[in-house]
Parts: sequence; structure tokens; C-alpha cells
Amino acid sequence: MNDKITLAHGAGGKQTSELIGGLFKKYFDNPNLTADDAAVLTPPAGRMAMSTDGFIVSPAFFPGGNIGKLSICGTVNDLACMGAKPLYISCACVIEEGFPMDTLEEIVKSMAETAAKVGVQIVSGDTKVAGKGQVDGIFITTTGVGEIMPKAELSGAYARPGDAILVTGDVGRHGCTILLERDRYGMEAEVTSDCAPLWHPVRDLIQEIPEVHVIRDATRGGVGTVLYEIADESKVGIRLDAESVPVCDEVRGVTGMLGLEPLYLACEGRLVIFVPKEKAEDAVRILREASPDTTGAAIIGEVTDHMTGHVVMATELGTETLLPPPSGELLPRIC
Amino acid sequence: MNDKITLAHGAGGKQTSELIGGLFKKYFDNPNLTADDAAVLTPPAGRMAMSTDGFIVSPAFFPGGNIGKLSICGTVNDLACMGAKPLYISCACVIEEGFPMDTLEEIVKSMAETAAKVGVQIVSGDTKVAGKGQVDGIFITTTGVGEIMPKAELSGAYARPGDAILVTGDVGRHGCTILLERDRYGMEAEVTSDCAPLWHPVRDLIQEIPEVHVIRDATRGGVGTVLYEIADESKVGIRLDAESVPVCDEVRGVTGMLGLEPLYLACEGRLVIFVPKEKAEDAVRILREASPDTTGAAIIGEVTDHMTGHVVMATELGTETLLPPPSGELLPRIC
Repeated sequence: MNDKITLAHGAGGKQTSELIGGLFKKYFDNPNLTADDAAVLTPPAGRMAMSTDGFIVSPAFFPGGNIGKLSICGTVNDLACMGAKPLYISCACVIEEGFPMDTLEEIVKSMAETAAKVGVQIVSGDTKVAGKGQVDGIFITTTGVGEIMPKAELSGAYARPGDAILVTGDVGRHGCTILLERDRYGMEAEVTSDCAPLWHPVRDLIQEIPEVHVIRDATRGGVGTVLYEIADESKVGIRLDAESVPVCDEVRGVTGMLGLEPLYLACEGRLVIFVPKEKAEDAVRILREASPDTTGAAIIGEVTDHMTGHVVMATELGTETLLPPPSGELLPRIC
Repeated sequence: MNDKITLAHGAGGKQTSELIGGLFKKYFDNPNLTADDAAVLTPPAGRMAMSTDGFIVSPAFFPGGNIGKLSICGTVNDLACMGAKPLYISCACVIEEGFPMDTLEEIVKSMAETAAKVGVQIVSGDTKVAGKGQVDGIFITTTGVGEIMPKAELSGAYARPGDAILVTGDVGRHGCTILLERDRYGMEAEVTSDCAPLWHPVRDLIQEIPEVHVIRDATRGGVGTVLYEIADESKVGIRLDAESVPVCDEVRGVTGMLGLEPLYLACEGRLVIFVPKEKAEDAVRILREASPDTTGAAIIGEVTDHMTGHVVMATELGTETLLPPPSGELLPRIC
């Protein structure tokens, strides 16, 4: 194969076949991977979840991951948020002419490794090539289909007063990592992205505590945006204990210097979970035991029946203040 | 809403919600469209087909369609090629900062109209915005899930000597249309893309003739590439009757002047179908009656047991010649 992607790799002829056979099929190999126009699959036994996500992160490689790993984690986590076991994933790549073949191989390898870790099959794909300057590097869209656990009854509209609110680990790592990689601030800090697939901890949690009301992954917009979304969709108030929100020292340092709120930095391996208060301690324990990616699980707040649609922060001084409503990520192309 | 797409529309906050609510949900409205991380769906009763396709066509609007219509047709047709009724589609858009909102609305409207025509629901989506110059206009990836008809047993590997080969209409329209739109040749001709969703004619065909062996849509690479693919995958020879390949006058004129082979120009609404010879006339009749998009159905050749892996063309002079093997589309970003 060439050492760079050419327009012919996207033209549907011989070189497209060689790219698919020599690279994608080599890493994605499984009995359900199709050579036809669509994969033929066994549908899930019960309710089915379907989710899609486009990934355009810049830079494509960052401490803790790359766009390939991210593209599998993102869709796996979206399925997990509905209590769904990821079964099948499709991926569509748009690649810039001249993109290095060995970089592409590293991305595809990361996708395969992450999928294998979760036990999800990549069954179908598509490759397009755009001319130099018509796409910045590589964009990947993944779509996942999953089998919803019979016990799971999850929705952003199901939060109830009396629910405790958990996060599965320290917040803001992914956003902070990308921020530093863009190198706009001349700062150096050892931060790695939290990018991780979270199906297994969700499975363990719902298996033991089917009463979980809401799970949402805090990607673009961070935990703060998720809290406002749920307050709105469930028509409840949220009271956040600012002190208990886990933030690692490096992220605290960087955000402190730049005057940023870690609650509004993107995560790519953190879930926000709403569960009846009496189950909250159990939930924390289960999550901490379930996976190295959720050992930092903590209770960060509760759902109330006042200040509907708002997120109130209790500070260490005992005062209360409104968490400023979300205005979106400060950086484009975070994921 | 703003009249142009801004980076904030892709930031996951308030403006992303407004774009999704004010545009995508308005047109895609259906009971299964999710507000959560994944849609909750009823899986198909039998075997399930899953297919994904990225669309980067340039220009995004062309005679006979636009990237929105194309993005639904492409995935619907990939499912149809496996004999699958399209049930659910997800879509992921990457949009360039500054993209006109009314153009986006026209694209989304075309997606909704095409989906409605087929009876498929758009259930899940994602919107990303890349900075000016980081993506050329708009790229759309659609993924479809379908229910495979119990009778259908289709694969590119199932062609057998004695099969007749059909196309569902005149070839090369889409490729020729895009070629002329790029305006490199200073030619004017009234050609429109064949872009069309073909589930209904496939359904009618398989309902009456379950013995169909192969269906493949001739997109990138055209009918010629499909014939070589099937010859290879099924380990058969193919004999093409050059005279019987339908080509409209406009496409014949343009390709004649440019020295191009219409068999290698992309279609976006044409299927190549392999069916036992004794059912071929019935198949043509069914297709012609099934839809205005397949009235041009015709038998163009047959499967043989010699010259395995090759496509031989019989010419009007009674001589035989090899169809040159595919080398891919002459134009990038055809779909």
C-alpha cells in the first residue's frame, strides 16, 4: 500500500478495496463484518438502543487517547447511558488526501482494541477521501446498536427529588488535555484525557441497582451542562455540593490559572448518574469496584423540588450560588 | 436563530440545543426520535441489516438532488440490497462555520422528505461544527438498520452461471451530472442525477421472486465496478451485452465527447440484480411496474462459468472484448 492516502483510495475501485482489505478488515476482523452493502446481524433480544456520534477532535492524537479510541468510547458510552450492552458498531471515515497511512493504521488499531475491550463488533464501514484542504485530517462517525438491559428504565426526564447525583470520576480531564495540546497558553501540565469505555461499570451498577433513574455522559459542555439538561428535562432543581466535585490537581491548577470552571470542561469517560438517595452509597461502592475507570466515583449533589430548572451550588462557606448556565465549550473540535 | 452556523452551534450548549430543536427535530419529528444519548427502539422481528455511509458530495446541490436526499437514498439502498426494509436511520453532520442556515434547512428538509417517502424513521443524530476551512461545507453520515425479508437470501457471493443480470434503469446519470456541475469542461447538457430510494421496487421484486441472488447498488465506480466485484466474490464469469446497457442520450453525448465509459460513471438510484435466467423477464416486468424510478429496468448480460473473475463485453459486431477492469471514479467527492 502507498504510505499516504490518495484520492484513489476513496474512489470505490481497486485501491479502495486494498485499503479496506489491508487495513480495516485486518483489524476489525469478526464473523459479522460485512463484505456486502450491509451487515446481516441478529437483532437484540429485547429493546434496542441506537446512537450515532461524529468525531472531529483536533489534534487527533492527545495524551490518553486518539480519535480512534474516542470514536468507540463515545458511542459505547452513549449506549451505556441507556443501559444498553453495545453489540454492533459501524464506522464511516472521511480522510484528507495525503493523510499518512501509518497514522491511519494507529487510529484503526485503537478502534479495534477499544471495541475488543468492550466486546462490541465493528460490522460495517465506509471510507471517503476528500481533497487536500477539504477536510482537516480525519473525521470518524460511529453508530452503535445495543441491547437494553431488561431492568433498565433510564431517561433524562426521570430524575426525581430525593435522588442523589454521582459522577464516576474527576471531571474536566479531556477538555483540559485538548486545551493544553492546542498550546495556546504556553503552559505545561501532566494531564491525560479520561477517554474510556464505560459499559462494564454501568452493567454492574444496573444489575445491582435497577432503580437508577438517569445516566448521561458528560462530553461536550461537561458535567455542568448535563446537570442543566437534566434539571430542564426532569423539571427539577439540582443542588450541587461544590466541595465534593472531584477535580485532579493538574486540572485544578490549569483551570485556576485560566479562570475556567472544571464543571464546564469536557469529559470523555465520566458519567453523571441519578439514583435514589438510599442507594447512593451502594452505587458508589459498585462503581469503584467495577472498573479502574470508575474508581473515583463520588456523590456530588442531590435533586430538589425547588428552583426548578436550575443548578444551585453550595459552597464551603455555607452560602448558595447559582452555577452559571452553560454557554458551551470554550474550544471547538473537543471531540 | 442566526442565519449562519457558528462554532457555538457545535459546542454542546444552548445554541446546539436551539439548532437541534429548531431545525432537526422540526423536520425529523417522530415518536422514536430521541432526546437522550441513544434512541430506544423495537428491534426487527427477524434478521437485521446495518449499513453506514458518509456523504461528502461536491457541490452539495445538483440537478436531481442534494447531499441530504443523497444521504438517505444511499443508506436506504444499501439496506435494500440485502433485502432489508429500512426501519431506523441515524445521521451525523459535520458543518463548516459560516454555513448558511437556510441551505442547511433545505438539506434537512430533503432528508425528511426522502425518509418519509420510504417510511423510515430518523431516530438519532449528532451535530459537529468545524472551523472555517476545516471542512468543505457539510458532510453527512447516515447509518441505517433494517428488517431483512424472511425470503431474502442475498449476497455478492451468490451469483451463479445461468443467472441473468439486470439494471434498474439507464446508467451513469449521477456521475455525469456531478461532472458537468463541476464545470470543468464548458459543456452544457440537461442531465439530472438518478438519485432515488429503491426499497419499494426491491420489496416487490423479492416478494414475487425470492430466488434473486444478488442486488448491489452501483454508486462509486458505477455498474462496471459492481460487475467486477460480483465476478470476483462469486467466482464466476460475466458476459455483458454492450448494446442492451441503457444509457440516456445526454449521458451518451457527454461521455462520447469526453471519451468516458458510462459503465464506470456513478449512479445513485440504480441497482444491479442477478436472478435465475428463467425469472428474468418477470423481474423486469415487476421492476418496471413497481416505481417510476425503475421503469427503465433491462437485462444487460448473463453469468457464465468461463473467464472467471472477468467481464466480457459482446459488441454489436459480434466480437467479444474485455471490459477494462475498474480503476475507480475519475472524480473525487462524487457522493
